[in-house]
Amino acid sequence: MPDRAYCQSPLDDRYYQEAMAALTSRAGLTSSMLDYEVALAEAWQALGFCSPDIVAEIESARRIVTMAEIDEEEVLTDHDIAAMVNRIRFHISDEAKPFVHRGATSFDARSTAEAARARDVVRRVVLPEAILLQKELIALALREKDTRQTGRTHGQHAEPITFGFYLTEFVDRFGACLAGLDELSQQLVGKCSGPVGAYNQTSLYIDDPIAFEEAVMRKMGLRRAIKSTQITPPEPMARLIHECLLLCGALANLAWDLWHLQQTEIAEVREGFKDGQVGSSGMPHKQNPKNSENVASLWKAVGPRLVTVHADLISLHQRDLSHSASARFYTEVFAILYSMIGRMRQILGSLFVDRDRMNDNLHMMGDAVLSGALHQLLANYGCPNSHKQSQRLALQVGRGETGKLLRLAQADDEIAPYVSQFQPGELELLSDPANYIGLAIRVTEDVCGVWGTETGLLEQRLRGAEPTEEAV
Amino acid sequence: MPDRAYCQSPLDDRYYQEAMAALTSRAGLTSSMLDYEVALAEAWQALGFCSPDIVAEIESARRIVTMAEIDEEEVLTDHDIAAMVNRIRFHISDEAKPFVHRGATSFDARSTAEAARARDVVRRVVLPEAILLQKELIALALREKDTRQTGRTHGQHAEPITFGFYLTEFVDRFGACLAGLDELSQQLVGKCSGPVGAYNQTSLYIDDPIAFEEAVMRKMGLRRAIKSTQITPPEPMARLIHECLLLCGALANLAWDLWHLQQTEIAEVREGFKDGQVGSSGMPHKQNPKNSENVASLWKAVGPRLVTVHADLISLHQRDLSHSASARFYTEVFAILYSMIGRMRQILGSLFVDRDRMNDNLHMMGDAVLSGALHQLLANYGCPNSHKQSQRLALQVGRGETGKLLRLAQADDEIAPYVSQFQPGELELLSDPANYIGLAIRVTEDVCGVWGTETGLLEQRLRGAEPTEEAV
Amino acid sequence: MPDRAYCQSPLDDRYYQEAMAALTSRAGLTSSMLDYEVALAEAWQALGFCSPDIVAEIESARRIVTMAEIDEEEVLTDHDIAAMVNRIRFHISDEAKPFVHRGATSFDARSTAEAARARDVVRRVVLPEAILLQKELIALALREKDTRQTGRTHGQHAEPITFGFYLTEFVDRFGACLAGLDELSQQLVGKCSGPVGAYNQTSLYIDDPIAFEEAVMRKMGLRRAIKSTQITPPEPMARLIHECLLLCGALANLAWDLWHLQQTEIAEVREGFKDGQVGSSGMPHKQNPKNSENVASLWKAVGPRLVTVHADLISLHQRDLSHSASARFYTEVFAILYSMIGRMRQILGSLFVDRDRMNDNLHMMGDAVLSGALHQLLANYGCPNSHKQSQRLALQVGRGETGKLLRLAQADDEIAPYVSQFQPGELELLSDPANYIGLAIRVTEDVCGVWGTETGLLEQRLRGAEPTEEAV
Amino acid sequence: MPDRAYCQSPLDDRYYQEAMAALTSRAGLTSSMLDYEVALAEAWQALGFCSPDIVAEIESARRIVTMAEIDEEEVLTDHDIAAMVNRIRFHISDEAKPFVHRGATSFDARSTAEAARARDVVRRVVLPEAILLQKELIALALREKDTRQTGRTHGQHAEPITFGFYLTEFVDRFGACLAGLDELSQQLVGKCSGPVGAYNQTSLYIDDPIAFEEAVMRKMGLRRAIKSTQITPPEPMARLIHECLLLCGALANLAWDLWHLQQTEIAEVREGFKDGQVGSSGMPHKQNPKNSENVASLWKAVGPRLVTVHADLISLHQRDLSHSASARFYTEVFAILYSMIGRMRQILGSLFVDRDRMNDNLHMMGDAVLSGALHQLLANYGCPNSHKQSQRLALQVGRGETGKLLRLAQADDEIAPYVSQFQPGELELLSDPANYIGLAIRVTEDVCGVWGTETGLLEQRLRGAEPTEEAV
Repeated sequence: MPDRAYCQSPLDDRYYQEAMAALTSRAGLTSSMLDYEVALAEAWQALGFCSPDIVAEIESARRIVTMAEIDEEEVLTDHDIAAMVNRIRFHISDEAKPFVHRGATSFDARSTAEAARARDVVRRVVLPEAILLQKELIALALREKDTRQTGRTHGQHAEPITFGFYLTEFVDRFGACLAGLDELSQQLVGKCSGPVGAYNQTSLYIDDPIAFEEAVMRKMGLRRAIKSTQITPPEPMARLIHECLLLCGALANLAWDLWHLQQTEIAEVREGFKDGQVGSSGMPHKQNPKNSENVASLWKAVGPRLVTVHADLISLHQRDLSHSASARFYTEVFAILYSMIGRMRQILGSLFVDRDRMNDNLHMMGDAVLSGALHQLLANYGCPNSHKQSQRLALQVGRGETGKLLRLAQADDEIAPYVSQFQPGELELLSDPANYIGLAIRVTEDVCGVWGTETGLLEQRLRGAEPTEEAV
Repeated sequence: MPDRAYCQSPLDDRYYQEAMAALTSRAGLTSSMLDYEVALAEAWQALGFCSPDIVAEIESARRIVTMAEIDEEEVLTDHDIAAMVNRIRFHISDEAKPFVHRGATSFDARSTAEAARARDVVRRVVLPEAILLQKELIALALREKDTRQTGRTHGQHAEPITFGFYLTEFVDRFGACLAGLDELSQQLVGKCSGPVGAYNQTSLYIDDPIAFEEAVMRKMGLRRAIKSTQITPPEPMARLIHECLLLCGALANLAWDLWHLQQTEIAEVREGFKDGQVGSSGMPHKQNPKNSENVASLWKAVGPRLVTVHADLISLHQRDLSHSASARFYTEVFAILYSMIGRMRQILGSLFVDRDRMNDNLHMMGDAVLSGALHQLLANYGCPNSHKQSQRLALQVGRGETGKLLRLAQADDEIAPYVSQFQPGELELLSDPANYIGLAIRVTEDVCGVWGTETGLLEQRLRGAEPTEEAV
Repeated sequence: MPDRAYCQSPLDDRYYQEAMAALTSRAGLTSSMLDYEVALAEAWQALGFCSPDIVAEIESARRIVTMAEIDEEEVLTDHDIAAMVNRIRFHISDEAKPFVHRGATSFDARSTAEAARARDVVRRVVLPEAILLQKELIALALREKDTRQTGRTHGQHAEPITFGFYLTEFVDRFGACLAGLDELSQQLVGKCSGPVGAYNQTSLYIDDPIAFEEAVMRKMGLRRAIKSTQITPPEPMARLIHECLLLCGALANLAWDLWHLQQTEIAEVREGFKDGQVGSSGMPHKQNPKNSENVASLWKAVGPRLVTVHADLISLHQRDLSHSASARFYTEVFAILYSMIGRMRQILGSLFVDRDRMNDNLHMMGDAVLSGALHQLLANYGCPNSHKQSQRLALQVGRGETGKLLRLAQADDEIAPYVSQFQPGELELLSDPANYIGLAIRVTEDVCGVWGTETGLLEQRLRGAEPTEEAV
Repeated sequence: MPDRAYCQSPLDDRYYQEAMAALTSRAGLTSSMLDYEVALAEAWQALGFCSPDIVAEIESARRIVTMAEIDEEEVLTDHDIAAMVNRIRFHISDEAKPFVHRGATSFDARSTAEAARARDVVRRVVLPEAILLQKELIALALREKDTRQTGRTHGQHAEPITFGFYLTEFVDRFGACLAGLDELSQQLVGKCSGPVGAYNQTSLYIDDPIAFEEAVMRKMGLRRAIKSTQITPPEPMARLIHECLLLCGALANLAWDLWHLQQTEIAEVREGFKDGQVGSSGMPHKQNPKNSENVASLWKAVGPRLVTVHADLISLHQRDLSHSASARFYTEVFAILYSMIGRMRQILGSLFVDRDRMNDNLHMMGDAVLSGALHQLLANYGCPNSHKQSQRLALQVGRGETGKLLRLAQADDEIAPYVSQFQPGELELLSDPANYIGLAIRVTEDVCGVWGTETGLLEQRLRGAEPTEEAV
């Protein structure tokens, strides 16, 4: 393992994650390219070009070839894939040698491996962690479904909701992103169409090179690109990375919200703070929302990465190699997303919800926050300028004054005639903001129900999927 | 109409497009919000809260209210939607007044209208133009399906293809993006859930505010967000805009390729150049690929706009308004995409394809470009180090030397034994790069066939769709 | 003037600014290019190639030629600068005609005009407005220099400051950006070196084309690029635009801070809210920080624009034209910055500062915020683990408990020995957070003093500068 | 050292650079923070608070403390700087303990260390390497100052230049960026103003905390921020990073140009290709411009990183910590720039310049490229429509036809009268494009001269500078 303190990237230091690196590192990619070489040999064997023994030799070599020997070889070839191919050949008989990389160009292996690897990263690493987060969030939302909280728009108290209802926003957004990742990770494509995509080489001695390509892809668990150049079209990968970023964005939104709810003046929730922990080296009293800040901060680091992916949408003719270095950085998006999910789980796992404080804050503006309800009821009973009237009265309610709005309304010459018609239920609703939560509870239950079911189904699909072989 | 020369934005000067502006301008958005107010009134009427006459009054007002009067009113209210609502009310009876905007908050109207408007922009303006481009491109690709061209990777001659095969790359990428736009433009969502998304106000006097919301959305041709705050979740719009950018990127790639094919030394294609046109004010001989450059350049202008959309993924609590100004710029993405499509149609419509030149260039490196074919055939006849042998011979072939590679191979002690086994068809293929095009023609036909059919189906779907009413 | 409601860009609708558009519009650019043509003729005349009368003719034509006639001509030439040149020639004698655009290529005029125009935008429009803002901010900071406010880090109460001290952060950041804009706007360069930058054409009949170029640049108030291609190097413009964005970022930071200080629970400041204004169409009680949100939102729209400028850093060989369209959008950065400054002035001009509320909030955490002071004093009197001791006591102080920390300290066996040595001044400081503001007042005065002086000097420099002639 | 193949980031695998990592890694940052702690102790000692012995103890501890022990401690504190401080204290006497980190908050150390570190990275690692590149480029440009080459605009042959003149564009752009890096790396600022920037804690027992801060900064070789919060203002670092990116952009431009000049049809230059190297695993004949592509590609990876820096321009109140993770990635910009410079040096070090090929290409369009010269000369001799006439004739010149334009001109009824007046020198110039290079040679010499001198001066300045102590 690296001495992390001397790494150039924080992704190999503070944010190193072994489960992720197993796939996203160069070793992970090489493993996927080795899978490709085996799949290719199997396809040749299926056509009768070579014996099963030769495939077995290649499979065996694939399991013993090491990154170290490939690295040494690359010093000679100055070409990573040629180095890998040479080292497989080193471990097998002369008869088997021609069936390694046969009919393939480097990017048949590389493009296909990048697709297979990205699919595995999403389906084996990111989604399982995201599902845990989603389940925990659903449980928390349902637990807090009737905990009253003030709704806030523009940072101003708006109309009442519940804390569970609030959290459900993210259940919904996460749910849609998880569904997107599930779908888009299955739409990645591979290829075996040669240096310019026209099957020039494979058509030299195969009747149906497209059927051959399909056979290789089947073994890789991918669909073939119906049109490739030296590489596959860039859009499927761009869509997948974009969906990752949408999930990052939603995570950052939740993190920023929790940061806001932890402000000293609001203090409705609190991240866990362990014994011996130091909040500030200068101010002993500080207990900071550092995990929320971390998630918010990683979003700033990861978001702009899509600009790189978009720059790579353009590759001249049948390919220039100007995506060579830049595309190596794509997997950092997966790594950062994974880190954000893990950190958010930590936050939620130790989140203290201060219900009393939520209730206090809900009543901070007194009945002014009922102005919308008053406006609607006045309108319903025929008052022609209900908005203006309600605004006039609401601005007379002082901080913390409960019951004031209704009293003012009942005493007001202009609107008392309408108020006098209000029904008991309506009056009760106007007597306390805590009563005026609309369908907050029902929506919480409904949305958590929908996404709970979907999450369960997704989990089953992922468990059923074992598309490729093991890594280096 | 504006005096374009005094506009702040090139989008209202050089790149102004009336069909686009009709929808993307503030007038276009207002029109969609007026649709919302009518849909809302209809939903109230369906529940029996008001008579059909009142709906008719509102519908009638919606048709006569002007942007000018709304603008004047906004000076008073400092709130655009309040201004619009006031002006509708101005044109109707006192009985009808309470049924305008009843139970709605501003962003019920605005979020829903933005979704409906984006859907219409994509389905009524962008996609019809993109379909024309796709059809023209398919026709061109099929026309040139057997025009030999050198394949190029790294800017170096690779293996032969055909010009039609080359163009098919974009038929495929455009096709996938059009399908994406079709799908994502139908996944936009609207809302009628009030200031904080909990239906606080509508639940005051409706039994099932969610069913009510569904009724309003049905009239708007949208699905409801199953969870909204003051606004709808941002991801569906972000996905749609991202898909637009993927199409922009593919257009830019084609434009850059055509720019490269027009370089003086390559000169395989040429943009139209009309009589009286000036290529350069300093160099009379110049005829520049200015349309390709325009498309390439618009890509640079539009691509980064997604960063703004991503910044807006975060909205605090039940909404901050920090997307207020930024989101107004989103539609510029549609406008630039539309401009790029139109310009690409101009390019393709007048593109001169110099087949002789393509053939000359194909033979420029002589037989060296057949090295891959030689490598494969040698391997197929059992040569154990076919790559190295082919490289050795290929580097001996001079520029423009035809027939050399095969002669060298036949005279080479090391590989002659394998070459002597080559079949007549294989020898013929090795005699001229023009023979070595693999499946270029078949792939062109197949891919153009697939996307031709899909494009036709999409066209039919768009023609069938008349989801909302007319604009202001 | 445009019918703004039908514009494609919000920059020609809500955010249209006439003073800015006069320069940033195409008319503004053309005006600068016409300046160039006059400067060029003057330089020819200075070398004796033509008479002063001919220059006078061209100057006269420059004043009467209209955008409308240039636009008509461009339909014929398909080249904007050739169109402009043709129209100048139309208005002058045959003898004068050859001296229009003589020896120049289009981008001699365009690159130079873009530089001159950007300089003018910054120095005549942006900086004067920014100076007003800076002066107002300095005045406000000095007025509030001793208004106690809690300092906040991580959204948590930290150590006390004053509101004026807080504002001074922006005095300093704005000041540095203004200085940067002053400097960088004077480092823009122009050129008159012909189509490929080697003075090929002017060297045909001028002895010293570089001296000639210098003469033209002098008239334009610019320095010449010591090395140009068809265009000037892109970096000076990129640096200027980047500096604009740094100012935008600082404005957005201030806007977000003010947004936070307006949160219902904090409520330390308040934007002006006028009679008749509607905060929310659904919630009559709402008074939203909409101007702060506007500034924060424009930042999201403008920030990513630099990515476009960076894409244009690459222009192939002596220039490709892939910056043709994209560079037309650069001036939108100036326009958005100008809009942000103007809006910030509105905010500050009507900002209500609630000093009582600031004082209440300062005492909200009781004496816990004095933990750092206690920690320092304990350390100063020799306590070896002062941080840990202070943390232990601070966590026992409840919300709003004043005087508690000191009492706890004095009663604590472990630290009382140190506390007993505290001097009267130190004890007083520990008795109320309002006493513990460090150098807040002095820093406010110092920094406002420094930047006040600099701002005055900058203003004088700008007043002295009248580098170019009037516009179309 | 890390097993690179298992790293998450390519920056710790393919692009790992030890000289860079020594500074940019966490170990490098910690080293700079340890410098800070020593500088702080020295300042206390200078004020008489402690003895020189205590400083010596701290200095000694600073040299023995390891990253490993700090990492272990952080597991307990959950705070990296508290961990570092604890470990220093561990190695010193009880008397010395209070003088570690005394009066400082974490970000006094961190902000200052980040500034000192960035300065060192730029001045000790980036600039020395960039100076080597610049010198090599200047030598190459001067060597090729009279090698004729066609100028190219829009990818079309324009007017003749020399290859040295072409290269000089980058001498100039690099030169300006190096000057910028020199200047901006010296404008970074540090701080010692405490948790909220008001010197609350240091003013408890120092008369002039600002003078104290200046003393600490003097030892760190930095200027103090005249206004800081918990952190220093973000703009100086943003300016420095932006300047790095401008240099990256210029490097990428050169790389793309060289890629274009290596296209098979153009082939004017060639990257080195070593024995045994494999260009393509599928096409043995390929020799690809992979180093140019690498530089072009790294630009795509690094460019968008500025968006992250800009996001961090906003930090709420006296600081939120949402830059915590994101700012850790800033140094990756330095690392990628350094890699690009090194790679460009490799390219230039082995670049083959094919002068014959340049000459052939120059004559490819025959005399058509002299149309501008003809146009100017005609104008000079009084022809009123010289542009149109030259265009008419130039379009009649076929590919490779030399001498044709002049012959056509001399035989043309309309313009012969002017041509007959051309002087011998003018006729000679019109007889061959190779004669028509304007001031290409002089400009090459001048610009290389200017920047050669500047580079030498910069080198001297860097050599003289030894501002801080050694690293961990």
